[in-house]
Amino acid sequence: MINKLVIIGVGLIGGSLARALKKVEACKEIIGSNRTVAQLKKAVELGVIDRYDTDIAKAVAGADMIVLAVPVGSTEAILRQLNGHLDAKTVITDVGSTKQSVIEAARAVFGKVPGNFVPGHPIAGTEQSGIEASSAQMFQKRRVVLTPLPETDARALNKVRRMWEQAGADIVEMDARTHDEILAATSHLPHVLAYTLVDTLARMEQHADIFRFAAGGFRDFTRIAASDPVMWRDICLANREAILKMIEKFGADLNHFGAALRDKDSAALLALLSSAKAARDGLNNS
Amino acid sequence: MINKLVIIGVGLIGGSLARALKKVEACKEIIGSNRTVAQLKKAVELGVIDRYDTDIAKAVAGADMIVLAVPVGSTEAILRQLNGHLDAKTVITDVGSTKQSVIEAARAVFGKVPGNFVPGHPIAGTEQSGIEASSAQMFQKRRVVLTPLPETDARALNKVRRMWEQAGADIVEMDARTHDEILAATSHLPHVLAYTLVDTLARMEQHADIFRFAAGGFRDFTRIAASDPVMWRDICLANREAILKMIEKFGADLNHFGAALRDKDSAALLALLSSAKAARDGLNNS
Repeated sequence: MINKLVIIGVGLIGGSLARALKKVEACKEIIGSNRTVAQLKKAVELGVIDRYDTDIAKAVAGADMIVLAVPVGSTEAILRQLNGHLDAKTVITDVGSTKQSVIEAARAVFGKVPGNFVPGHPIAGTEQSGIEASSAQMFQKRRVVLTPLPETDARALNKVRRMWEQAGADIVEMDARTHDEILAATSHLPHVLAYTLVDTLARMEQHADIFRFAAGGFRDFTRIAASDPVMWRDICLANREAILKMIEKFGADLNHFGAALRDKDSAALLALLSSAKAARDGLNNS
Repeated sequence: MINKLVIIGVGLIGGSLARALKKVEACKEIIGSNRTVAQLKKAVELGVIDRYDTDIAKAVAGADMIVLAVPVGSTEAILRQLNGHLDAKTVITDVGSTKQSVIEAARAVFGKVPGNFVPGHPIAGTEQSGIEASSAQMFQKRRVVLTPLPETDARALNKVRRMWEQAGADIVEMDARTHDEILAATSHLPHVLAYTLVDTLARMEQHADIFRFAAGGFRDFTRIAASDPVMWRDICLANREAILKMIEKFGADLNHFGAALRDKDSAALLALLSSAKAARDGLNNS
């Protein structure tokens, strides 16, 4: 049982975590904190949180667990507001899509990564944002990656594990660098491609016709380009090196495909398409 | 009422058309023809077609309407088999994803595009293939593009329109070149990107981990990479010029995004992401 859980940033992910933990009665009290009051009021109305406090320092007093659920670009600013207001017993975790940047932010604020800070990332979400889209089912059978450091306190790590397990998730541990590389490939690059594709098409002269003839495949393909732009700007900047490497790798492969097409190299094209289909089919069976 | 409809290639699209027309009793008889007998037998078993004939010349004798539903790369070979076996009254149409290449194939075989040949393309389908995935609902409210030429017979055009309307589709007419440019942008390029992305990731050293951490967004994004590789090789080759132009345009925009990221140009990144999101949100409301 968590006596006092404080969620900073009660949007899609923060709200879904609150809902999931309420459902299994894992907390005595869930308190929300945000810069803006509108979302917090809505969260209380919807029964997602018990109460809120826009003063972060007051909100976290005596908390057992603090979850940072803000865009990764805001992590450092929030940690600065928390600095000096944390009880020794309080465990802190986050849900940021990049982990090295969050660890750097903690180091910048506290001089070192505190033993009770456990960097985390639930691999879940939708292209929607905000408390209205939150769901108690969001983390059911989804993976939550935790990236503890050698200096991370084992007790703190266990408390964070337990919280996510109660929300229905499967926990995986890995180092922050590996996490960031894997996510650059499976999530950040696809988002960059989807946003760029929509942008390419939107700027074409025939764009009205083009969007008119976009069928189901295109809608699926570009759904993630409806995600929150501020969140994705932050992710791109926070995982810049790994994403730039993936853009370069992908660009080279796209040129390779283009060269095969330019050369009318039917065998090379079929080999590329077939191996990709085999890999994608494998994903369905995993 | 169509007395005798012959569908050459009874797979996902040919099978779905047969099912849709059967449902509204639009045909007296639907005959299938294919190179391989297994799919045709299955189509008869499933009640999708009434009977089949693997001899195309015999199959089409006295037909009112012939629908070519084969990968676009096979169009010319099929038209050659039909040449000399067509009644004057028979209308021919196709479902190919590229239209200029189909028109060229008809010219190559017949010396000119026959007046009773109406090039068409239903903008529908899934990443699945084969008769088992076919559905009578496939064309409901979907657009079918017809690309008649000046020499196309108005009566033939009307018969094809009527057939697709009975299958539930909305008909749009445009010239073949415009069709090919629009489809290169909305369908062919996204397929190339999805196949290339899966291929890029599959060839990375950590590929097992990478696919293990692929979440819902990635699955949506790469679903179209499970499409039939032979069909997509044919489409790429058939619409080569337009697709190469789109690859180039997209590649330049991706480099532009990469440059903004390399420069940590937060404002430029946010502008790109925001305008893409606005365009994608507009698609949901169209």
